Amino acid sequence: MEKKIGFIGLGAMGIVMAKNLKEAGYQLQVYNRTASKVDELGGGIVKCNTPAEAAANVDAVITILSDDAAVEEVTTALLQTLPKNAVHISMSTISPDVSEKLASLHAVQGNNYIAATVFGRPEAAAAKKLWICVSGDTSAKQAAKPILENLGQGIFDFGENAGGANVVKIAGNFMIASSLEIMAEAYTLAEKNGLDRKQVSEFFSSTLFSAPIFQNYGKLIANKQYEPVGFITKLGYKDARLTFKLAQQSEIPMPVASVVHNRLLTAMAQGGAEQDWIEGISRGVTDDAGL
Amino acid sequence: MEKKIGFIGLGAMGIVMAKNLKEAGYQLQVYNRTASKVDELGGGIVKCNTPAEAAANVDAVITILSDDAAVEEVTTALLQTLPKNAVHISMSTISPDVSEKLASLHAVQGNNYIAATVFGRPEAAAAKKLWICVSGDTSAKQAAKPILENLGQGIFDFGENAGGANVVKIAGNFMIASSLEIMAEAYTLAEKNGLDRKQVSEFFSSTLFSAPIFQNYGKLIANKQYEPVGFITKLGYKDARLTFKLAQQSEIPMPVASVVHNRLLTAMAQGGAEQDWIEGISRGVTDDAGL
Amino acid sequence: MEKKIGFIGLGAMGIVMAKNLKEAGYQLQVYNRTASKVDELGGGIVKCNTPAEAAANVDAVITILSDDAAVEEVTTALLQTLPKNAVHISMSTISPDVSEKLASLHAVQGNNYIAATVFGRPEAAAAKKLWICVSGDTSAKQAAKPILENLGQGIFDFGENAGGANVVKIAGNFMIASSLEIMAEAYTLAEKNGLDRKQVSEFFSSTLFSAPIFQNYGKLIANKQYEPVGFITKLGYKDARLTFKLAQQSEIPMPVASVVHNRLLTAMAQGGAEQDWIEGISRGVTDDAGL
Amino acid sequence: MEKKIGFIGLGAMGIVMAKNLKEAGYQLQVYNRTASKVDELGGGIVKCNTPAEAAANVDAVITILSDDAAVEEVTTALLQTLPKNAVHISMSTISPDVSEKLASLHAVQGNNYIAATVFGRPEAAAAKKLWICVSGDTSAKQAAKPILENLGQGIFDFGENAGGANVVKIAGNFMIASSLEIMAEAYTLAEKNGLDRKQVSEFFSSTLFSAPIFQNYGKLIANKQYEPVGFITKLGYKDARLTFKLAQQSEIPMPVASVVHNRLLTAMAQGGAEQDWIEGISRGVTDDAGL
Repeated sequence: MEKKIGFIGLGAMGIVMAKNLKEAGYQLQVYNRTASKVDELGGGIVKCNTPAEAAANVDAVITILSDDAAVEEVTTALLQTLPKNAVHISMSTISPDVSEKLASLHAVQGNNYIAATVFGRPEAAAAKKLWICVSGDTSAKQAAKPILENLGQGIFDFGENAGGANVVKIAGNFMIASSLEIMAEAYTLAEKNGLDRKQVSEFFSSTLFSAPIFQNYGKLIANKQYEPVGFITKLGYKDARLTFKLAQQSEIPMPVASVVHNRLLTAMAQGGAEQDWIEGISRGVTDDAGL
Repeated sequence: MEKKIGFIGLGAMGIVMAKNLKEAGYQLQVYNRTASKVDELGGGIVKCNTPAEAAANVDAVITILSDDAAVEEVTTALLQTLPKNAVHISMSTISPDVSEKLASLHAVQGNNYIAATVFGRPEAAAAKKLWICVSGDTSAKQAAKPILENLGQGIFDFGENAGGANVVKIAGNFMIASSLEIMAEAYTLAEKNGLDRKQVSEFFSSTLFSAPIFQNYGKLIANKQYEPVGFITKLGYKDARLTFKLAQQSEIPMPVASVVHNRLLTAMAQGGAEQDWIEGISRGVTDDAGL
Repeated sequence: MEKKIGFIGLGAMGIVMAKNLKEAGYQLQVYNRTASKVDELGGGIVKCNTPAEAAANVDAVITILSDDAAVEEVTTALLQTLPKNAVHISMSTISPDVSEKLASLHAVQGNNYIAATVFGRPEAAAAKKLWICVSGDTSAKQAAKPILENLGQGIFDFGENAGGANVVKIAGNFMIASSLEIMAEAYTLAEKNGLDRKQVSEFFSSTLFSAPIFQNYGKLIANKQYEPVGFITKLGYKDARLTFKLAQQSEIPMPVASVVHNRLLTAMAQGGAEQDWIEGISRGVTDDAGL
Repeated sequence: MEKKIGFIGLGAMGIVMAKNLKEAGYQLQVYNRTASKVDELGGGIVKCNTPAEAAANVDAVITILSDDAAVEEVTTALLQTLPKNAVHISMSTISPDVSEKLASLHAVQGNNYIAATVFGRPEAAAAKKLWICVSGDTSAKQAAKPILENLGQGIFDFGENAGGANVVKIAGNFMIASSLEIMAEAYTLAEKNGLDRKQVSEFFSSTLFSAPIFQNYGKLIANKQYEPVGFITKLGYKDARLTFKLAQQSEIPMPVASVVHNRLLTAMAQGGAEQDWIEGISRGVTDDAGL
């Protein structure tokens, strides 16, 4: 017998993940604000008109939306129908305190909320190569596990506080954005001193910094290749604001987070909201250097 | 027939490299400011009283010293005896303009100067696992190659300008120091939000940041393990100053370099010159966060 | 015939302003969350149990509260009774968008909202020496003018947008906090180079920087005199957050605002919330310098 | 009987000061690297071909030059002829350690060196309205006093260490540059929130910030009026480097100094070396804000 999953949010990541779940044999009830997007999933799924419809009679509902406000609004709606004991798998990049608050709302209704945040671009999602971090109620995480295994190559458990996986996601996004800034500064230093940015990038990303972030993004920064657009500056800046907000809430001065925040804010102010965030950061550095 | 090499500078890195060259069968003429240190190399080497003695009748002389001033002073001395066509392999972390200047002095005398900078801690040097960047005259680099192959696992050529490898070294040190700062900020954010620093560090260094810098240093930062002391804050700060000087010379605003510079300067001002630079950076972050 | 004014908020500033208005002959209806505080105003005033009571049958109601949330909550309450054509004089340090929103709510009810922000410590308020910035509907500002003239030495009109005066207040607080940081850095530079902080402070504040901010605060920073506590770090940090939020909303990278924000956040994280914000900033600088 | 003064350095400030001394009745022996500039002083002065000529047979020699290197070079030259007991009044903006070193050289020769640094633009110099800070040997300062009284409106004594007045000058330049940055950030915040920069500037500079720096520079920043060029970015940046160097030497993390340094470095990198430094700073802020 097939298992039913509600799926809400067909953004760049969501659409790919929904496809994977459909292929894995799940019966999907899908809602997206822009309804036409649902058709891209093809036949064999149930197209819903509201989040509540998507969450009715399911074992689990997945949400993957743009920000705190969207997740709060959709959750309020889906809680009207989500069955007792069902699990809400919340995969958006949001503040941990929002997760904590939503987890409480679910507890009141006798169902469950876990955060399940992901690292990886849409290509990685398509290849089921995401890294997934989960947090929240233990049995709920267990129930979600078989579902999540169809989406990623590894699941990491960050404890029982609902917001734990959100913290890891925010910390990770900060580390990624900062790495972009560092590479941009370093390669520009190399360029202005007569070296080939690409050669320098290849050296570092094949030795001391031989990790995906430095290899993949490093190449783009070295080549000043900012298209096709993958992840836009507006979203990168949204994440920088989440980092900053969490730093404020938990009282941690993070000077590099401030630098990255201001870098992306500059790109926003200069009209670059829809450009790739790598352009936002890398061109910020080269512009300041007069290149 | 054995080849003769002058070797000047038995610091933490130099001593290990000299041992490797001795083992590889080179006949070493060794000078160190603190003469007693030379004895650690055991028998079979020539102990010299001056840099000039060490550079007499050799095919190549290696210098690996603490800063710009030391390299300039020693080079002036060794040029008195360095034979025509011999190569000075300059392995210190110094400014590229110093390398350019010294290369000119050698050219006048009919011998050669190349920069050959290294990445790796003393353990890596002992295991012949250093990454080596070279720059300068092509034939001189070729002459140096068999020697350098006894020291590292890879040699990367950064062109004919003598200072090229110094630029790469400075850019790399900047990237390393910045990575320490980023990890310290991220793991402290995680800690203050209820997560286990070690688990967070392990997650990142086994996925997106699966590179030596994040694996090795990340563990120390996660564990707040600052001993035994490997590389002291005073030297880390010296490197931060080199970065800053090069940024000034080549007119590149580097805000993250400013953050790291000030972080290490704070550690210096607070009496931490002899502590590990990981402590200097990591404790700076946790102190500011009230931990 | 006496004019009736509602007065809500007896903090350090509010209590002094209420006294001045009472002395000026206004009939006050006063509400404060901690009711006992109202007794400090003595006889001849009406003590109210709710904001709505304080706003009933008045020509004007003044609010001077701690933050956005408090002003929004109290305004919702007082709008239940505030007569048509009456003016709400909003003197708290809040975001301009909150003012714009509240102005709209008043417009719907047929009464008026203006922002009237003040610069000056409680002593200045007691001496009727505040500088007052107003913004909002022109006739409402005119109606408020005779009242405000009992509180300050000058009234500056920043236009018809309700939030204008809030912007000036936030910009001014940023300039003040930054000036504290600048003085702390400069005087510490002087001290560590063998000069007398006080002499340096006196020189600057009697010549190029002969303005109240540098004269009054400069002396405290020079003397490292942090008591008695005037304005606490928690409130200074709240203002730094307001600055940062406005910079985000209006897309302006403000690197000095980031420095000051992080400086005050450090003081908060280290347990200094209740210390004078001058201590928060000045000791942050001297601590970092190892003094 | 007239007193003889050597005068070396006819830059924007020097030329005006030399005129004032000539008018005050001093007999001037003048040297300038670009000799033609000396003619602007008119008749009645002795035109010299070398610094040594200018320093021969004088009671005092004044130098006001561009940087550390220029002052060191000229001093070496003038020491060949400077009479015993004569005073070298060193008015350039240089590092305090250079002053200390030069003071020692003078002591060896039996004459004196004092630092006498000035605050004020050329117009202030013309009007004898400079603020002058002195440091060094007490009797030498006393000998210099009657001369300096012809140049400024106040002389402030910063002790017996030769470099004291240099420290004050550097600290003051830092405070000025930071004030420009602060105003640029604040007025841009006001502008992007719908206010008139000029009105905001006038408000602050007539109330809390009623000091020359905020009044004079504030008006230019508010009006985005960057011509005629007064003080060029290249020199402002040179001063920012001096600040940074002194912060390094005396181990004081100065984050606002880092911001200002990077702001001016950006202007340099973007080709603005010859623009007014107010443009360098103010346009940096508005550019980042997308204005």
